[in-house]
Amino acid sequence: MKRLFATIGRPMPENNIKQAMFPEGATVIQNPLGTAPGFRMPMTTNGHTASLIVLPGVPREMKPMMENSVIPWIGANRGTDKVYAVRVFQTFGISESALDEAVAGLIKPEEAKVSFRASFPQISLKVRVEGAPGEVDRKLDELSKRVREKISQYAYAEGDVSMEEVVGQLFVEKNLTLAIAESCTGGLIGHRITNVPGCSRYFKSDLVTYSNDVKEGVLGVSQQTLIAHGAVSEECVREMAAGVRKRTGASVSVATSGIAGPDGGTPDKPVGTVCIALSADDQSFTRRYQFRGTRDWVKLITSQVALDWLRRYALGMPIADSALFRR
Amino acid sequence: MKRLFATIGRPMPENNIKQAMFPEGATVIQNPLGTAPGFRMPMTTNGHTASLIVLPGVPREMKPMMENSVIPWIGANRGTDKVYAVRVFQTFGISESALDEAVAGLIKPEEAKVSFRASFPQISLKVRVEGAPGEVDRKLDELSKRVREKISQYAYAEGDVSMEEVVGQLFVEKNLTLAIAESCTGGLIGHRITNVPGCSRYFKSDLVTYSNDVKEGVLGVSQQTLIAHGAVSEECVREMAAGVRKRTGASVSVATSGIAGPDGGTPDKPVGTVCIALSADDQSFTRRYQFRGTRDWVKLITSQVALDWLRRYALGMPIADSALFRR
Repeated sequence: MKRLFATIGRPMPENNIKQAMFPEGATVIQNPLGTAPGFRMPMTTNGHTASLIVLPGVPREMKPMMENSVIPWIGANRGTDKVYAVRVFQTFGISESALDEAVAGLIKPEEAKVSFRASFPQISLKVRVEGAPGEVDRKLDELSKRVREKISQYAYAEGDVSMEEVVGQLFVEKNLTLAIAESCTGGLIGHRITNVPGCSRYFKSDLVTYSNDVKEGVLGVSQQTLIAHGAVSEECVREMAAGVRKRTGASVSVATSGIAGPDGGTPDKPVGTVCIALSADDQSFTRRYQFRGTRDWVKLITSQVALDWLRRYALGMPIADSALFRR
Repeated sequence: MKRLFATIGRPMPENNIKQAMFPEGATVIQNPLGTAPGFRMPMTTNGHTASLIVLPGVPREMKPMMENSVIPWIGANRGTDKVYAVRVFQTFGISESALDEAVAGLIKPEEAKVSFRASFPQISLKVRVEGAPGEVDRKLDELSKRVREKISQYAYAEGDVSMEEVVGQLFVEKNLTLAIAESCTGGLIGHRITNVPGCSRYFKSDLVTYSNDVKEGVLGVSQQTLIAHGAVSEECVREMAAGVRKRTGASVSVATSGIAGPDGGTPDKPVGTVCIALSADDQSFTRRYQFRGTRDWVKLITSQVALDWLRRYALGMPIADSALFRR
């Protein structure tokens, strides 16, 4: 170990002195935002030489170091002229294996690398083209077109775009306004919708009615429906969706009610039973699902299905045409 | 590279064959839940010998491998009889440096290691005692008692417990019921409250009133208040908090309204301006804050302050006595 920085003036705390110690042979990587610099050094293992790059763990400090120092260094030292270009399709409502089958044969292994990444609840499909700087973009566009045509049903976005952003863009474009009535999702749909800057242009309200008396009092769900069918029923969410539109004047609404677990399941309505409704001037639609997973997964998949319904409605597509939940 | 697994019967896909290749000298770590095993191997760098342990990245597969194979192996090979015990205090409303100062001198370096971890919006303080198996727990209890006495004001939990779980436990214990009225947080508080299993025992409703007409129509905020003070005002959140209690019959409520950004700020009310109110039979309380950060940070810190208010109310503590926001 060698100390690479000197201290000036008053004694430096022990912890900061430690940050100035580096292995011999290391090249220091400056940290403009913190006291812990990084370093890189060559390493030889089993006859192969590699570079070890060490950065502080705090993302706020690590990211600019990665962007400003590490990536340019890799670019200058990777020993090839080839570049690559990438397109990512965000999909929902289709399983990874069904997605794989859908695009099978569209792209030859020598044309591009196709890979999948499941990040619950969506699955992304990545097309990666490598080649000379002048040709990769054109080639990627052409290959992406083939993929897009095949999976347009499930691909809700391209690039780093979330389902709630897509819904927001569509609601602005189509001049629609949104209200939500949640029970089992507890506010998650509203939270996601309001993560998108500018959502006040289309989002009016989200009435989370967890207890039955509030479903009646605030949303106007009839006591008869609650007694005859229970809060987790297509009848109840239909009235919730209609009620929240009436209350708020929104042009479109979704409503959710279900059993997120781990308790509260019954033989008729086990944990994971969820009903969703969409209400609009020109149509209303309800469906009962049986999801699997922990409480947070049930909430998340329910919110994703509800947002996907809003997207499909705004695009004039069939509402719940999902390969994933078609049984 | 050596192939350590054989294929039986039909040809194995290329990707799976790759998963059977390991560096020479590697010991395979079984993966009971997936096709990608891990491995460990000794490594020598600069005269030091270490063990490299490689596991698949999918958390669902990695975690049981870590627990069932790696940790027992480390335990058997670490070459010491000493054990250690750890206590983590979850704190909110105090900065890392103020927390450091508060506990300075309480614990000598030779007694235990004290460390901090900032995971926005909370900061955890960890006390780690190392020693003989028979004595670490007793010693940890004693040291923890010293820490607890000093930071009880800000330490909302010990161990891996969230603020919303603490609020839930207190509401059950004290027989309180909860309603929420959200504007800028958009459903996040309700989402967090309903992440806790069994929350239906105390949580009645969360009325997310994003647009002003719904603040009036659903919560009964007066048009006069909205015109005179705007939706982001202590006057407005006071009426929202009172309104949601009236609507739902809950014994306690919180309300939020603010400018989460990035747009919508004015010189008088810049981005990050947030008003919060608490309403209960025996008291009501409002405060205006100026938070910093991105949209998601403003939403998150607001939800955390609101939950902390509920915790403080349930414990009979002063509501907004926070070192972090006291200026």
